[in-house]
Amino acid sequence: MSSSNLVEKGKETAAFAAVDKHVEDGMILGIGSGSTIVYAVTRLAERVRKEGLKIVCIPTSFQAQQLIVTNNLTLGSLDTTPELDCAIDGADEVDDKLTLIKGGGGCQTQEKIVASCARKLVIVADSTKNSTSLGQQYKKIPVEVIPLAYNPILQRITQQFGGTAELRMGKMKAGPIVSDNGNFIVDWFFPTGIEDWKTVNERIKMMPGVVETGLFVDMAQIAYFGGPDGSLSVKLAS
Amino acid sequence: MSSSNLVEKGKETAAFAAVDKHVEDGMILGIGSGSTIVYAVTRLAERVRKEGLKIVCIPTSFQAQQLIVTNNLTLGSLDTTPELDCAIDGADEVDDKLTLIKGGGGCQTQEKIVASCARKLVIVADSTKNSTSLGQQYKKIPVEVIPLAYNPILQRITQQFGGTAELRMGKMKAGPIVSDNGNFIVDWFFPTGIEDWKTVNERIKMMPGVVETGLFVDMAQIAYFGGPDGSLSVKLAS
Repeated sequence: MSSSNLVEKGKETAAFAAVDKHVEDGMILGIGSGSTIVYAVTRLAERVRKEGLKIVCIPTSFQAQQLIVTNNLTLGSLDTTPELDCAIDGADEVDDKLTLIKGGGGCQTQEKIVASCARKLVIVADSTKNSTSLGQQYKKIPVEVIPLAYNPILQRITQQFGGTAELRMGKMKAGPIVSDNGNFIVDWFFPTGIEDWKTVNERIKMMPGVVETGLFVDMAQIAYFGGPDGSLSVKLAS
Repeated sequence: MSSSNLVEKGKETAAFAAVDKHVEDGMILGIGSGSTIVYAVTRLAERVRKEGLKIVCIPTSFQAQQLIVTNNLTLGSLDTTPELDCAIDGADEVDDKLTLIKGGGGCQTQEKIVASCARKLVIVADSTKNSTSLGQQYKKIPVEVIPLAYNPILQRITQQFGGTAELRMGKMKAGPIVSDNGNFIVDWFFPTGIEDWKTVNERIKMMPGVVETGLFVDMAQIAYFGGPDGSLSVKLAS
């Protein structure tokens, strides 16, 4: 297999394992965003079809909503069910404390909202996302900002924490990408040596104009990583 | 004069005093939102015309932008000038530490962004906004939220802090009002007895889905209050 196919195999392995382990009949389930979640929804649809499970799915993005609808799953919302049994989502990097970087796909705000409503957050990813500490493999933290504020926030983040930051530009749209919430994404390329991500997350989120960061601290309970050889590894929050 | 006219007199007195005291030639100036700011911009335009001041004005809302444009003032943005000399804004209530409640007009997010970029935040209001502690006269704190999250946030705020909360509904629009940023406003009717507003503000802002609160803690340096008799009182941050 090509290296790209091997990564896909890892995503599938992790997603299938998590859905098999954590999804039970009658659940209200948060559905994350990104490429690995496609496999999770595929498996979920299979289980619903074969086992007749009754599951309500709460999306974390427009992509997630479309996945739910096209797979004939039951679409719910936080209006009717603000308490979820479980949320399954991907991540761009996961450290040994299960601190996550998310938002490579620009959906971290809705993902964090849904995760904050769930009793359990289960992460699924290929094994390249599994790190001892953040920054080993992924170099940036996405921060969703009110468009008006992107320039002062670019400056404030780098002044306070070092590194560099840039407005995420579109490839299929002139100018910056716009999030599902109508905002911009600032990508902060953080310097090495940061350990206290909880404080960094709090200080960035407190900046006026910051809607949400891609740092998920003390939110995930368990992460599944699939390797290129079909192997599975599991990490628990300490 | 009617009581309404007396309140207007107070707004004018405060706004004129602040503009006369704090605006100097060459400044980059934040322009707040609300009814009192209309008087501040009127006075500013008068000073620019008579004294030939060169001032660049950064708006905090669509209303502020229109005020700047229709008064022939120079419109700027945080893109070109992310550091402001001063911001002048109104408030719904001001306590003795100059903690503010803002957002009766739903513009607190952009107001806080602009204020956070200013070396000085000057508040102008009629004397009914001058309290010893928050809640003496104003009963609610507006919180801007991502629409998806309004229901869990309504619940979380009241569970954590008491009081009641409701989605702000439109009077000239069916359903909820939508902010200049495309979001909803949750009005939290807070219980009596809260003293540590800094912690309350931090805990609410940290909730996923909260864009910004209407609590301004340790931001304003000085507040001008105009009385119905043309009197002026000034309060400084301790």
